[in-house]
Amino acid sequence: MLRWLTAGESHGPELVAILEGMPAGVAVTTADVEQALARRRLGYGRGARMKFEQDEVTIVGGVRHGRTQGSPVAIRVGNTEWPKWETVMAADPVDADLLAAQARNAPLSRPRPGHADLSGMQKYGFDDARPILDRASARETAARVALGQVARNFLKQALGVDVLSHVVAIGTAEAPAGVIPGPGDLAAVDEHPARCLDAAAGEAMIAEIDTAKREGDTLGGVVEVVVYGLPPGLGSYVHWDRRLDSRLAAALMGIQAIKGVAVGDGFETARRRGSQAHDEIENTPEGVRRVTNRAGGVEGGMTNGEPLRVRAAMKPISTVPRALSTVDVLTGEPAKAINQRSDVCAVPAAGIVAEAMVALVLADAAVEKFGGDSVEEVARNLSGYLSSMVIK
Amino acid sequence: MLRWLTAGESHGPELVAILEGMPAGVAVTTADVEQALARRRLGYGRGARMKFEQDEVTIVGGVRHGRTQGSPVAIRVGNTEWPKWETVMAADPVDADLLAAQARNAPLSRPRPGHADLSGMQKYGFDDARPILDRASARETAARVALGQVARNFLKQALGVDVLSHVVAIGTAEAPAGVIPGPGDLAAVDEHPARCLDAAAGEAMIAEIDTAKREGDTLGGVVEVVVYGLPPGLGSYVHWDRRLDSRLAAALMGIQAIKGVAVGDGFETARRRGSQAHDEIENTPEGVRRVTNRAGGVEGGMTNGEPLRVRAAMKPISTVPRALSTVDVLTGEPAKAINQRSDVCAVPAAGIVAEAMVALVLADAAVEKFGGDSVEEVARNLSGYLSSMVIK
Amino acid sequence: MLRWLTAGESHGPELVAILEGMPAGVAVTTADVEQALARRRLGYGRGARMKFEQDEVTIVGGVRHGRTQGSPVAIRVGNTEWPKWETVMAADPVDADLLAAQARNAPLSRPRPGHADLSGMQKYGFDDARPILDRASARETAARVALGQVARNFLKQALGVDVLSHVVAIGTAEAPAGVIPGPGDLAAVDEHPARCLDAAAGEAMIAEIDTAKREGDTLGGVVEVVVYGLPPGLGSYVHWDRRLDSRLAAALMGIQAIKGVAVGDGFETARRRGSQAHDEIENTPEGVRRVTNRAGGVEGGMTNGEPLRVRAAMKPISTVPRALSTVDVLTGEPAKAINQRSDVCAVPAAGIVAEAMVALVLADAAVEKFGGDSVEEVARNLSGYLSSMVIK
Amino acid sequence: MLRWLTAGESHGPELVAILEGMPAGVAVTTADVEQALARRRLGYGRGARMKFEQDEVTIVGGVRHGRTQGSPVAIRVGNTEWPKWETVMAADPVDADLLAAQARNAPLSRPRPGHADLSGMQKYGFDDARPILDRASARETAARVALGQVARNFLKQALGVDVLSHVVAIGTAEAPAGVIPGPGDLAAVDEHPARCLDAAAGEAMIAEIDTAKREGDTLGGVVEVVVYGLPPGLGSYVHWDRRLDSRLAAALMGIQAIKGVAVGDGFETARRRGSQAHDEIENTPEGVRRVTNRAGGVEGGMTNGEPLRVRAAMKPISTVPRALSTVDVLTGEPAKAINQRSDVCAVPAAGIVAEAMVALVLADAAVEKFGGDSVEEVARNLSGYLSSMVIK
Repeated sequence: MLRWLTAGESHGPELVAILEGMPAGVAVTTADVEQALARRRLGYGRGARMKFEQDEVTIVGGVRHGRTQGSPVAIRVGNTEWPKWETVMAADPVDADLLAAQARNAPLSRPRPGHADLSGMQKYGFDDARPILDRASARETAARVALGQVARNFLKQALGVDVLSHVVAIGTAEAPAGVIPGPGDLAAVDEHPARCLDAAAGEAMIAEIDTAKREGDTLGGVVEVVVYGLPPGLGSYVHWDRRLDSRLAAALMGIQAIKGVAVGDGFETARRRGSQAHDEIENTPEGVRRVTNRAGGVEGGMTNGEPLRVRAAMKPISTVPRALSTVDVLTGEPAKAINQRSDVCAVPAAGIVAEAMVALVLADAAVEKFGGDSVEEVARNLSGYLSSMVIK
Repeated sequence: MLRWLTAGESHGPELVAILEGMPAGVAVTTADVEQALARRRLGYGRGARMKFEQDEVTIVGGVRHGRTQGSPVAIRVGNTEWPKWETVMAADPVDADLLAAQARNAPLSRPRPGHADLSGMQKYGFDDARPILDRASARETAARVALGQVARNFLKQALGVDVLSHVVAIGTAEAPAGVIPGPGDLAAVDEHPARCLDAAAGEAMIAEIDTAKREGDTLGGVVEVVVYGLPPGLGSYVHWDRRLDSRLAAALMGIQAIKGVAVGDGFETARRRGSQAHDEIENTPEGVRRVTNRAGGVEGGMTNGEPLRVRAAMKPISTVPRALSTVDVLTGEPAKAINQRSDVCAVPAAGIVAEAMVALVLADAAVEKFGGDSVEEVARNLSGYLSSMVIK
Repeated sequence: MLRWLTAGESHGPELVAILEGMPAGVAVTTADVEQALARRRLGYGRGARMKFEQDEVTIVGGVRHGRTQGSPVAIRVGNTEWPKWETVMAADPVDADLLAAQARNAPLSRPRPGHADLSGMQKYGFDDARPILDRASARETAARVALGQVARNFLKQALGVDVLSHVVAIGTAEAPAGVIPGPGDLAAVDEHPARCLDAAAGEAMIAEIDTAKREGDTLGGVVEVVVYGLPPGLGSYVHWDRRLDSRLAAALMGIQAIKGVAVGDGFETARRRGSQAHDEIENTPEGVRRVTNRAGGVEGGMTNGEPLRVRAAMKPISTVPRALSTVDVLTGEPAKAINQRSDVCAVPAAGIVAEAMVALVLADAAVEKFGGDSVEEVARNLSGYLSSMVIK
Repeated sequence: MLRWLTAGESHGPELVAILEGMPAGVAVTTADVEQALARRRLGYGRGARMKFEQDEVTIVGGVRHGRTQGSPVAIRVGNTEWPKWETVMAADPVDADLLAAQARNAPLSRPRPGHADLSGMQKYGFDDARPILDRASARETAARVALGQVARNFLKQALGVDVLSHVVAIGTAEAPAGVIPGPGDLAAVDEHPARCLDAAAGEAMIAEIDTAKREGDTLGGVVEVVVYGLPPGLGSYVHWDRRLDSRLAAALMGIQAIKGVAVGDGFETARRRGSQAHDEIENTPEGVRRVTNRAGGVEGGMTNGEPLRVRAAMKPISTVPRALSTVDVLTGEPAKAINQRSDVCAVPAAGIVAEAMVALVLADAAVEKFGGDSVEEVARNLSGYLSSMVIK
């Protein structure tokens, strides 16, 4: 079983994340994590913050000389903007006059539609949205991406698995059905400003972002994660919460701003006839295979040996430059929502976060199936499983 | 924290389910559970099994004189067909000759596309699909519906919450956007054979089922669960797996045959501009409200006081009368898939199962937020919370 | 990961237990479980109930033709006394007059010292102890023993592990230090009425029970569970709640009436000098071994390859014939405690329950270390681990 | 539900700990945590490391201006010795020559009896004990103490609960039965070098430490944690793993070097007759009370309103100056164990760690019973519970 927790506020000194249960022997370096975080800052349509924000990575536990040790892996992602915030976000009490002098500390009493602001204030008893938005912020996904890289390295080294993603839609601009990156296409996807594999669709996405920006608006979209090399039998039908699709859905819907999740052809499958919706089985020289992959590599809550395909639908960024209507909670009067961010579209980056979440779920499922306290042991157990399967 | 487990095979003597952590004092009877299970057998397009199959309900733990006691609630759902299966599915070893004489015991070596069969055999090391399909079967959802009724009674009695569902699409026949049942519409929905609230769409659904049946095919569709009366602040943004949308997604995707999940307007939201995608906030005599409910009652992973709306997309029934191609695992030769069922469409019933899963998730979130070992205590804590909220 | 829940009340129709996560292929029969439950009724000093109470075992899920299927295992343990209680303990509401006519239904308003009665009434809001005592009763341990037998069969078949227990003390009568049953001694222990391996201590225990009975008093004692054949490396030091000793302590302290737990020499070790407290390591033709086993087979929260030894201290039965003082909660007046049971000593049976809890923890730790969805896979992974260890 | 993870190695740059689920509004400062860590360094018999080792505390998440925010609390405890270890324990790969030049990097191939060394190497596949001992080290308890302080502040502020500990035995020197510190005695206990409340026993403990030190030996002992102000009804009898005693036993046995755990009079209770073992109940002007507290404040797995008392038995420090026999795993030859530490006795400090673990368990149980996202809400729910109890 893998367990992991993240902590830290968007304007705090750093994010911290701990991943417990990772086998020993996974090769991973600071540079690997930095590279993953750099990918998260990718994408057309990001505002200024992404540019000046740097992710200072420090691995502080669980890794020695480039290998995991079996102990919990801990990674810090420092906030280079911290000096500007160290009074406003100080952990310890601050002199009242000093605090009052900080413009940044003005209470945020106009909760933003689409954000955690209002419900969070009600739940935790605050009349200032700052404590809410500072944790609810998508900045927190940097911590997930950091841990996701460790999971990803494990999957590659122990099971030969490749995890990638691409953008399927931004606003109404959609990639054509059937455009799916292969295991070697990740670099090409990352090079495109919209992370879209289809040239025409990619251009339409860029154009849609440009228009939205001009009009003071924001955009959402859809990303797809594709995973190659998974053995059959990860996850299980025996109990609902062992189903891999259930766990993937939780992981993807647990990303900020995600409102829909699909496995394989998802909602499209619900429109099809049964005779056109499933994947027939055939024997080939390489073993038993599905003729199609409409299921997205999951049947009965288990991997079936075909590539895994899952999608996540992201709503448009909630902080809309043409500010939305709200209420000032201090006065009860109508107001315009506070505005803390300037991105138009974060869909390309959402793919990187989705990859991380999928990698964490798959690493957990692999450890559940194969046990193993080291990469060598997992690989050995996998090999024994594959070679002893009656039906290959 | 609520925990629950289900057990039992489709052709075994019974299903058993245990729900641990339910507060004391919830009024619930055998008749309540029977009625829930009867609703699960509803719907146009079901095959013969639904008719002869009866659900014999026995509450064997945790309830006394019509009230939960705080101890684990255990419910058995007996299988009236058990006498036909008691040799084939016997727990204890059976005389080989006796078994060989049972036609029902013939090994199922032609795994069905779209089912758990093949991956399950690979995972657990069987060359017969029976152990797989007997547990992976949607029959298991009866156990969830039984427990879901307890959760539902709790939500109603402690929090005043109503949980309902309706069918949004069957195949390509879709209800118009914006048709959402109100808290009192459940009986009307249940009376319609397709559980659709819109008359014209309902007729189209029936027609589509008739056509599919005639052509030896099967159908899927989309159901929506709507929940009224939830206080703001269930779930949380503080950690991804505390988000209510994440937990709901896991619960819905954990239902057999579900391939997609959406909260509020889901994938549709991803196509909208930010200025048209969120729910503006206004002050009203009844307190702060959202002008629209595109978010489906969840912002920042928390309920926001608006009705909860979640959708699940179900693939067509995998056992297609026009049998699909597969491989006989005993010979490696091409074959037609085994055929164990005769429903055309199970979407109306899926709504009932989805209600149960949503009720279980919400009951858990309520206990997490309000603690409480009895209905009275939960209600008292809720009342204290509501009356002390700064922003109501 | 293994998960398990038990349900059912002492005077209800049955206990039910579900064990989720057990690999496929474990040989287990109704007779195995019956035999385990018969062992639980063993022991000198039990009252009348143990004699007339029969345990009717039915395996209703997860096992077919004598083998687990990978799906959740569900076992019912019926209560042969149920006809006497079916009105008083009915799940559904009962006619008030009918109920009033039942002497057995009189409210239990004089909570018994040493029991859950009073705190349970306060916690769950009852003014009658019946709902409390009926679940808190040690009768519930029958459900654990039933599941424990499945775990035990798994451990034997997949890992070659033997789990046994013996009585170390009853009241002040103690077995001499160093008397530890070997893997083949279980039958001999079970034959002794006090389940004590040492003849003289066994006699003293019997005598102490006879005296206590004569004087209207009750007794507790200490049991020890010993496990042979465990590989090194179950559990881990990497996080506190992965430590095997932590998990064993929780499991044993989670048995009704247990007030102390020890691993190896336990509290005695705390009195020793370091030079006399640890187990030196030597190389032998059979591999690396400890010269002694003071640690009880656990170092750093992991098995070390030596026999596991854990102890549990049981308090005297709380229902003392010479009734203890209490308060009538309906009147607030002093009273004598209700008296629902007539055993003098249940220590011999506690050993059987302790075996079951230890077996469940070890099966979980084995699945965590070796993964595996079938007995064959676990055994293969174990074998690969043992043969590739640098230090054997 | 509270969740928490710790990470970091003994000679790494820092320990990091995350506590998830803590309500908002708990007053806590860096100074509070520093003071807790200073208490952990207390006690007669510690070696040089305790003196030069400083604990640099930084709260990096979840706390703002001295109050928790509802988000995960993250605390770093820096290692002032890190500069000496930054090559040997570097997360990233290090130049081989540079590493070879580090005497500190010599492989530790002589595993120490009583430590995780040997089993850890076997489990994770290392032929060097360093990765094992660096995580298994009791240094990790600093992270627990840091989080325990947050739990402790919560318990005090929301429930009025006081957590303290004292030393009951060191080696064979034992405090007399019945010496139990009151809620105001913590400062007095902390002032004594052995943290013993009884003057004569304290002197004997000091003498025993002096002797052991002179003779190149080490000592263990017993600590007791006492908690005042707990309401009745934390924990539950309804399922074994909800029992508070089970959870406390896991927490205490999960501390490095603990081999025994007791609740109330523990193993002593097992020797008593029933008539002398339980706590009779009486009505008093202050409400229903127990006449004695042999049970240690827990009956039926729940708090009963009396002070909680739990004990933990610590084995002598395993690194014995008179080195123990072992095997060199590189050669298979007999050897003397590596020696990395110079304490004689760490029992006084173990009390502080035990307090932290108990506080974390109790905070979790309080959140489970009272729900609540803020200190105010927990306090309000507690107050409602207490005032509505039928039996007070």
